[in-house]
Amino acid sequence: MTAQRDEANRLALKNLTQAEPVLVDVQRASDVVPGMTRHTILTSGPALAWSEITGIQRQAIVHAVLYEKLATTTAEAEALLDAGDVRVEPTQPHGCVGVSTGVYTASMPVYVVENRTGGNRAFCHMLEGNPPRLFVNGAWGDDVVERLRFVDQVLAPTLAEVIRRSGGIPLKPIMRRAIPMGDELHTRNDAATLLFTSTILPVLLDIVGERQDEVRSTIQFLQATPFSFMRMGVAAAKAALDAAHGIEGSSMVTGMIHSTKEFAIRVSGLGDRWFCGPHPEFQGKFFWGSSKEDVGWAGGESSVMETVGLGGFAQAAAFALPFRGPVDQMIERNLRMYDITLGENPEFKIPYFDRGLPVGIDIFKVIETGIRPVLNAVVIRRDGEGVAGVGPLVTAIEPFQAAAAAYTERYG
Amino acid sequence: MTAQRDEANRLALKNLTQAEPVLVDVQRASDVVPGMTRHTILTSGPALAWSEITGIQRQAIVHAVLYEKLATTTAEAEALLDAGDVRVEPTQPHGCVGVSTGVYTASMPVYVVENRTGGNRAFCHMLEGNPPRLFVNGAWGDDVVERLRFVDQVLAPTLAEVIRRSGGIPLKPIMRRAIPMGDELHTRNDAATLLFTSTILPVLLDIVGERQDEVRSTIQFLQATPFSFMRMGVAAAKAALDAAHGIEGSSMVTGMIHSTKEFAIRVSGLGDRWFCGPHPEFQGKFFWGSSKEDVGWAGGESSVMETVGLGGFAQAAAFALPFRGPVDQMIERNLRMYDITLGENPEFKIPYFDRGLPVGIDIFKVIETGIRPVLNAVVIRRDGEGVAGVGPLVTAIEPFQAAAAAYTERYG
Repeated sequence: MTAQRDEANRLALKNLTQAEPVLVDVQRASDVVPGMTRHTILTSGPALAWSEITGIQRQAIVHAVLYEKLATTTAEAEALLDAGDVRVEPTQPHGCVGVSTGVYTASMPVYVVENRTGGNRAFCHMLEGNPPRLFVNGAWGDDVVERLRFVDQVLAPTLAEVIRRSGGIPLKPIMRRAIPMGDELHTRNDAATLLFTSTILPVLLDIVGERQDEVRSTIQFLQATPFSFMRMGVAAAKAALDAAHGIEGSSMVTGMIHSTKEFAIRVSGLGDRWFCGPHPEFQGKFFWGSSKEDVGWAGGESSVMETVGLGGFAQAAAFALPFRGPVDQMIERNLRMYDITLGENPEFKIPYFDRGLPVGIDIFKVIETGIRPVLNAVVIRRDGEGVAGVGPLVTAIEPFQAAAAAYTERYG
Repeated sequence: MTAQRDEANRLALKNLTQAEPVLVDVQRASDVVPGMTRHTILTSGPALAWSEITGIQRQAIVHAVLYEKLATTTAEAEALLDAGDVRVEPTQPHGCVGVSTGVYTASMPVYVVENRTGGNRAFCHMLEGNPPRLFVNGAWGDDVVERLRFVDQVLAPTLAEVIRRSGGIPLKPIMRRAIPMGDELHTRNDAATLLFTSTILPVLLDIVGERQDEVRSTIQFLQATPFSFMRMGVAAAKAALDAAHGIEGSSMVTGMIHSTKEFAIRVSGLGDRWFCGPHPEFQGKFFWGSSKEDVGWAGGESSVMETVGLGGFAQAAAFALPFRGPVDQMIERNLRMYDITLGENPEFKIPYFDRGLPVGIDIFKVIETGIRPVLNAVVIRRDGEGVAGVGPLVTAIEPFQAAAAAYTERYG
């Protein structure tokens, strides 16, 4: 059995690391995301009934109904949701990655990333701006709607034009160069966003004559929001993970996601089941004015980055992370990730280690070593007013235990 | 005396670290460099008689006479130089920094950097392209002239226009952001060049309508030659060093330069004398096909970067340097530089250390500790065919000994 499992894991890891994610378009979710309708709202985490969704994740879904003009009041919106006339579905089965609450509506533009190796696609909604007041973190108001409209009417069509004229933008070369420039590509994307801007520059020049204002606003936005690339990065990660999912006998993790309620993982050889458990333990730092009491678990699936061996698995590439702990701790934490992974990324290297990034979390290595994956993340304020803190989240062991039990049951 | 020296050094260090270098223009050397004439050629290193200059430095000067059309054959050019009809002068007294052989002619465009704190200016000739065949490294031929012409006719006027329209481009914010992105700003400038391009982008958009081809070629050049920023960086360093020079009683080093013949330093409180000694010891790596025997000391003054606490003094910020040694060695070498410097840069930080960069080399600290400054550098092939190797150069102790003796003689 172990030989078969090793063989399956080798294939899963290969599909993961050999994915060639290319940003091929920006389109409205309803035009490109499979199964997306005007009355569908997607949200982060494993499937939950509407009644189980609480806090800012619930809040953001209500705002989504208003944004989509399916209702004009909060009460009306809630009634539609209660009645199931607006359906809330998890992002993942739609090929989407939810950032924070992860709320998508039909009209929202999404990045479309194609894995040229596997032929599959993944999607991510676009960044609206910088914190504090983001729709995706539960904020609502005219300012929030204005930013969403800018994305809808300026940023999305301009980038769509640029991407189409480019014939697609390969994301791996950008990621490969960004890591030695201090990005772990989850909570730091400064270099990747600059590199993306630099990549599209020639095409921006082609269209600036016809679209002066749009091109200028797009550049301004990319310069002002260095997290921009993350939305492309998570779609690239999801495309790679989906290509590595469904390998019979593989014990490799192909997803780690959160809802307001819980944390969950999925395993390549264990079908579409999500193994749930408690939220991770936050070991980062709170910003001034925020404390443990202010945290509202927003949900969030940007931990797809750690699932492909970035973020917390690449933090020794990102000593310039703000609010980080001591470097020795970052290095040690990062080194431990080699003990729970199946291999080293042949293309993405950590300069400090002079080694490929640890990639491909094996549920059995987690169980045997007791070492839990570390996620770099921000935690969100429960009042929808932005970010409470930033730093490592140490995942719970329960989902890995549940997955290992299911694996043993299935494969003996 | 020590109290007075300390006070003088504090002032010198302050002038150095509080310099505010702004790129204000690109102009022909003869239009902006003080004392530059059509029959002047500048070159790297302390003053040497024409007859003392050998190797590729001599070669590049002969090429310069040809480039400037003062002669049509090598023999003619040499005759002019021998007769003193074309005068060879050192760059430094003209406020210039020579990269490699450091050859400037009257018509060549230079970056003009103004130190807004001190009111002084410094200059650097522009990068022609990537190795191997660069004029500045002693190469000659139609291909070399073609690249120089591109700089002269496309790159320089386009950047001049951009810089003037911008009202000057402050360089410190670019440098401050580039260091946590893996640049030590001497042998790695990838992030700084990207950030510079990003900074000038809005103005490039303003002028692209009138200058389609020039703008596109400029962007292409900046994207293809990630060393571009270095030429602005060394001018910024020189402007800061000149502002820190001439402080009565200061034992701080305000220049480290090379000619084909020797290495030399200058000290803030010791006037315009250069204290000379043997070339540094190369401890880096040779590229495939090159060895010790292929090295021709080209001269070079990009070690102004180490003099302001960058390059070898910032290598723990640049673990992604190609052909670097083990990280532990980089860290240890970098830490040692704190033992020979007067302070830590309040604005430029090394993420790994979480400390300001070591800055302000004190000749007495060098003598007392026996620790010699480490320069990151490339070494050049004697045949003019490019770069032989890259890595640390450990400077000789003699110039520091000579300076200390002169200091004691002068100040007791």
